[in-house]
Amino acid sequence: MTPERVSPGAEEQPKKIAILGSTGSIGTQAVDVAARLGGRISVEALTAHGNGGLLLEQATGLGARVVCMTHPDAAAEYSADFRDRGIEFHEGTEGLRELLGARKYDLVLNALVGVAGLPATLQVLDAGIALALANKESLVAGGPLVMQAARESGALLIPVDSEHSAIFQCLRGERRQDLKRIILTASGGPFADLTAAELAGVSVDRALAHPTWKMGRKVTIDSSTLMNKGLEVLEARHLFDVELDMIEVLLHRESVIHSMTEMVDGSVLAQLGAPDMRTPIQYAMTFPERAAGPAQSLSLAGYGSLTFGGVDTGRFPCLELAYRAGCEGATFPAAMNAADEEAVAAFLEGRISFTSIPEVIERVLDGHSPLPGETLEEVIEADARARELARSIIDRPGVES
Amino acid sequence: MTPERVSPGAEEQPKKIAILGSTGSIGTQAVDVAARLGGRISVEALTAHGNGGLLLEQATGLGARVVCMTHPDAAAEYSADFRDRGIEFHEGTEGLRELLGARKYDLVLNALVGVAGLPATLQVLDAGIALALANKESLVAGGPLVMQAARESGALLIPVDSEHSAIFQCLRGERRQDLKRIILTASGGPFADLTAAELAGVSVDRALAHPTWKMGRKVTIDSSTLMNKGLEVLEARHLFDVELDMIEVLLHRESVIHSMTEMVDGSVLAQLGAPDMRTPIQYAMTFPERAAGPAQSLSLAGYGSLTFGGVDTGRFPCLELAYRAGCEGATFPAAMNAADEEAVAAFLEGRISFTSIPEVIERVLDGHSPLPGETLEEVIEADARARELARSIIDRPGVES
Repeated sequence: MTPERVSPGAEEQPKKIAILGSTGSIGTQAVDVAARLGGRISVEALTAHGNGGLLLEQATGLGARVVCMTHPDAAAEYSADFRDRGIEFHEGTEGLRELLGARKYDLVLNALVGVAGLPATLQVLDAGIALALANKESLVAGGPLVMQAARESGALLIPVDSEHSAIFQCLRGERRQDLKRIILTASGGPFADLTAAELAGVSVDRALAHPTWKMGRKVTIDSSTLMNKGLEVLEARHLFDVELDMIEVLLHRESVIHSMTEMVDGSVLAQLGAPDMRTPIQYAMTFPERAAGPAQSLSLAGYGSLTFGGVDTGRFPCLELAYRAGCEGATFPAAMNAADEEAVAAFLEGRISFTSIPEVIERVLDGHSPLPGETLEEVIEADARARELARSIIDRPGVES
Repeated sequence: MTPERVSPGAEEQPKKIAILGSTGSIGTQAVDVAARLGGRISVEALTAHGNGGLLLEQATGLGARVVCMTHPDAAAEYSADFRDRGIEFHEGTEGLRELLGARKYDLVLNALVGVAGLPATLQVLDAGIALALANKESLVAGGPLVMQAARESGALLIPVDSEHSAIFQCLRGERRQDLKRIILTASGGPFADLTAAELAGVSVDRALAHPTWKMGRKVTIDSSTLMNKGLEVLEARHLFDVELDMIEVLLHRESVIHSMTEMVDGSVLAQLGAPDMRTPIQYAMTFPERAAGPAQSLSLAGYGSLTFGGVDTGRFPCLELAYRAGCEGATFPAAMNAADEEAVAAFLEGRISFTSIPEVIERVLDGHSPLPGETLEEVIEADARARELARSIIDRPGVES
């Protein structure tokens, strides 16, 4: 227990934040959390890709002073609506850069989707601004770049994923060398009990129904293939500076224990809670303080029991593909991530089967010509190469549809 | 994660410690832990009540330079054996005081049994020495005195009980005002499933067989009546400075989650591990560092599931008696503790039945003439009064035997 007894919030200046990707699944929940936190948070900036109507509603509701839309047509359609209300308007990828430079933020929440979130991550950290990171691809594809940027500027990097937020909380006040093992929990997704044959026939609608977490479409499919857990392993490796063999995935269907750390003395620390993304989002916004939260109080007696088991990597090969890409290093994780994005998109369009997703990723890893991955440009180039290869594999008649 | 990257142990001076009550259940495990920690710990002093043979073995094995035996006959029998080996020998309660003043200790582990441990606790804290506290009665009977002594000297107070060590670990790095609730887990003891009628007929042998923890006789009986949990509630109240209604007891038979804290944002932090008292003992010895520990690594997949439920205070009234004593304050907790010690001793001697234990305690609370409990003398006086009352109740024909 720390001796400090600072009184919370009221007299302090509100924390100035920007929310990148505010109309997505994490973004809308972040807007909800920021609104509930009231005077502790001042939302200065919001960004969206194409959903101008919702962005306008959020910006006026929160009193944001600057926005960006990255989709050119949508930007053209909505720019006047924002400017008429005195809201500074930026557009496109360049507009995102301008928005990040337009104000002095205390914290930027990066909830962009895909590898497009990496340049923003680097820009924020390079500027020494605290980053709440919900964009998985930043660490998966550009882990060494991101961690180096944070080290060099000393900027705080707070994970927003429930698993990494749990680990971050478990390690609070601990010495890094006392960490022995990270135990990432996995709900197993909706198909944990299906046979290999049943998996091959899974429909898009069925794959989009996740048992415990409410998430975006891409993340929901990644949860059901376990690629989501593979991405989290690769993120954890960089965030907490551990070897891959120090990260273990544990099947825990109830998603109540969000993850754990085993310390050198055999103590295991865990963070638990009702499955509600708003809790880790809020933690990132209020850190190092906590505030009353929107999630239901956890009743373990109400659950009765929590269950644990191993993950069947035979039926769910994506998890091992992620470990493989992590071991190979260089731009293999970036290629894996790109191949997964292409394969999931093809599955959602009904072009390939559920079990073809890992097949596509494996073939992309087999055929990937790696780059060192030491610059943003190399990561983007590897991403592009992998997408091209993935698309050619998907379009080839050999892939079962 | 703290930025410090201090390299552990080797070049540093070993931590000088004293172990009070080294021949008891906690004491022998503490000796085992200290021996395993090798150069990090230097055991300077050991004390025992009457087991001189074991004390001699421990003192020579660890190279302790000073010992004390509190039982007069045993002290007379063994003193020459120690002095012949050049080990400074003290005896009796006064000898314990002398031993604590004889060396500069970095840490004292108080594993004395009963309210006799309270004066040592106060002496250590008054001297500004860090205290690893395994003596429950110090906080139950003298909580306000103990916490005041720690506050005034600034001495560190580290709990050794697995539950309180868990809470202490969960609160590491957290702000006190962010704590909302303490969730103390309880294995429920060996009789969680017995009916009220079956409980009345429980034998001593059966009560001494605890399903998950290896402990001393008194603690084992307290575990099966749930008085142990009641004592822990009263300890937690003082240790973590919370109201009684912020402490909840949760039935968790596997004793894997050692306890939890719910924070204001709904996050629940937990410390888990194989049930092995050596882990919290070692944590107290190495704090703020951790070291490789003797306990088996925890495999939650091996457990398969962990279960949770409410405690049936109807069949186990001791827990509510503890809350009642805590609410009444003053010397009621000291009286309750004394009554419990007398009642458990009478049960172990076959003089009263298992279900008479709470009856004796309740009648002592009903008849207790409280003192303010603001001095050590008042606490000791209340303890003596309650014992006398308890013995008169036990000896009265009305109590079912």
